[in-house]
Amino acid sequence: MKTDSIMAAPMAPYQADITSRRIVLPVPYLVFLGDARSEAELKTAFGLRDWASENCLGQHRMESYVPDIGLPDMSFSAAHQAGARSLLIGLATDGGKLPEHWWPCLREAVNSGLSIVSGMHDSLDSVPGLSDLAKTKGCSLIDIRHWQPTLTVGTGQRRPGKRLLTVGTDCAIGKKYTALAITRAMKARAQAATFRATGQTGIMLAGSGVPIDSIISDFVSGAAEALSPANAADHWDIIEGQGALCHPAYAAVSLGLLHGSQPDRIVVCHQHGRKTLDGFPDYPVPSLAEAIEINLTMAKLTNPQVSCAGISLNTSAMAPRDRQDLLDLTSEQHGVPCFDPMISSLDALLDFIL
Amino acid sequence: MKTDSIMAAPMAPYQADITSRRIVLPVPYLVFLGDARSEAELKTAFGLRDWASENCLGQHRMESYVPDIGLPDMSFSAAHQAGARSLLIGLATDGGKLPEHWWPCLREAVNSGLSIVSGMHDSLDSVPGLSDLAKTKGCSLIDIRHWQPTLTVGTGQRRPGKRLLTVGTDCAIGKKYTALAITRAMKARAQAATFRATGQTGIMLAGSGVPIDSIISDFVSGAAEALSPANAADHWDIIEGQGALCHPAYAAVSLGLLHGSQPDRIVVCHQHGRKTLDGFPDYPVPSLAEAIEINLTMAKLTNPQVSCAGISLNTSAMAPRDRQDLLDLTSEQHGVPCFDPMISSLDALLDFIL
Repeated sequence: MKTDSIMAAPMAPYQADITSRRIVLPVPYLVFLGDARSEAELKTAFGLRDWASENCLGQHRMESYVPDIGLPDMSFSAAHQAGARSLLIGLATDGGKLPEHWWPCLREAVNSGLSIVSGMHDSLDSVPGLSDLAKTKGCSLIDIRHWQPTLTVGTGQRRPGKRLLTVGTDCAIGKKYTALAITRAMKARAQAATFRATGQTGIMLAGSGVPIDSIISDFVSGAAEALSPANAADHWDIIEGQGALCHPAYAAVSLGLLHGSQPDRIVVCHQHGRKTLDGFPDYPVPSLAEAIEINLTMAKLTNPQVSCAGISLNTSAMAPRDRQDLLDLTSEQHGVPCFDPMISSLDALLDFIL
Repeated sequence: MKTDSIMAAPMAPYQADITSRRIVLPVPYLVFLGDARSEAELKTAFGLRDWASENCLGQHRMESYVPDIGLPDMSFSAAHQAGARSLLIGLATDGGKLPEHWWPCLREAVNSGLSIVSGMHDSLDSVPGLSDLAKTKGCSLIDIRHWQPTLTVGTGQRRPGKRLLTVGTDCAIGKKYTALAITRAMKARAQAATFRATGQTGIMLAGSGVPIDSIISDFVSGAAEALSPANAADHWDIIEGQGALCHPAYAAVSLGLLHGSQPDRIVVCHQHGRKTLDGFPDYPVPSLAEAIEINLTMAKLTNPQVSCAGISLNTSAMAPRDRQDLLDLTSEQHGVPCFDPMISSLDALLDFIL
């Protein structure tokens, strides 16, 4: 549904890149900060500032008390004139609602020619009059949570281009952050690389992607193939992992993503000190060795040359002076570079990969 | 949507068993044979006759030339009076269409008080007037392909009852047939057992189930948990497998089903002589040893006591006089009973399991 809505937008510069197998957002954004009362509510907006500043022209605050994310304050019409293509809702609300006192703002944004990108549970279509206004103005209303791709099953056929997938010993363990950091480090070395997003936040940062855990299970590997298509032989797709192969709830997502991604390299993400899976106290976190082995075993089906390129270790629970020792020890134990993306250089990892 | 429609049916005997996490069909059926011109079009109907005759009161043919499946011919009203609760569409059509010349039949069936069960691509709601008529008559229109369950994520929590899952070295290799045969053999020994269906045909046979490959990937293991819930300690759920763990397109489905089912035993299905995966000529069929090992390795996450109970081998490509030798040899090689469910007794398997 939302795909049609994207396709209908006339003259939008992102149209050339649209495929209904991936979601593609109209960039650059004006970041909507609404009436947020704390920085905690603005996690998405700060992520955009930190990781996708090239996609962000400015910010829009409804009230002067709203925290600043350091972008220029802009009205909707000024942002549109400056080249912004969409208003991206950059704050969280209780239950993912679109509160009624935002509605005039959203209408004004569309009236100024901006499409709207939302990750809320409430659909943008639920805002009275917004859908008709968007049609009139040739704008798109894009609900990332409700987007339905064209579904195709995986083919398993090898394709050119290099691919790296971040995997984890658990959910919520740094797979997105690690993939973003690797992409940034590669680009800093002038290595052609693209971050491939598989979750809502990542898609907002990248401006495109596939929300892989909301794909019907028969089509997960096909969706992963579409996310990281054939590319130049020396180009790296850095793919954001989801779930974990040793997770009793989410392993299906992880396996479909692993098979469809056909990664040449995996980087395993782990949190030092986490004993049991987040929210699953009966399930121990697997060891790094176990996680590496099971991911490589399963990945070999679609790419027999896969190997582990490194370990991304969250050491935030440790005393700062002990962190480097643990990173060095872990690297030695597993024979691959080990880094904490919050504190380490990624030079050793990139030297190892490239 | 269809769940509401089921729930709305007054006084239907199946209501007590309804949960929106599984699809539950109104049995017994009158099997609709329509205007089928060949037995090939009636695969579903013959499956019902062979495996679920207790759920079938009779057959309804639109024309006298339609092949007979050996059930009594009944009008809609006679079937309803005899206790039938639904008309089940037991034939296939090109592209899963509901042809216009069936529409008067479908209306007459509902008018006689029968619900309708369909596995067609066309929704029953697309038949003009049928939905309103069903509401008036308190009947349900159940499109198995379009059914949406209440989705919950897996918990990984152990539950009582014994479970056996059929897995395979490929798709379309006998997982449903094997599960049906094991269920029948257990019941013949007065062992409490329930066939748990995960595909459309199986659901029609069983009268309930979950179409596991159409579940959103985040919820596959949760749906599998709902399919085979806690049960008496000595009761066996015999769960129909889907896909294959070594399949580049469908492994996500298989892994979610494996984790959610928490099987105590797996039975591995294999076809003698199949060299590459059906439709995937670049992918060799894994060996039985590989398939057993990878399934047990992954299954241990949610049930550390899982083991392989047997091998179901399709030997139809062999000369009849050589089949038993191969079954005996395979059994010896892997240390578990090996049988061809089309020709063998399942006694050795059941002795091994029970």
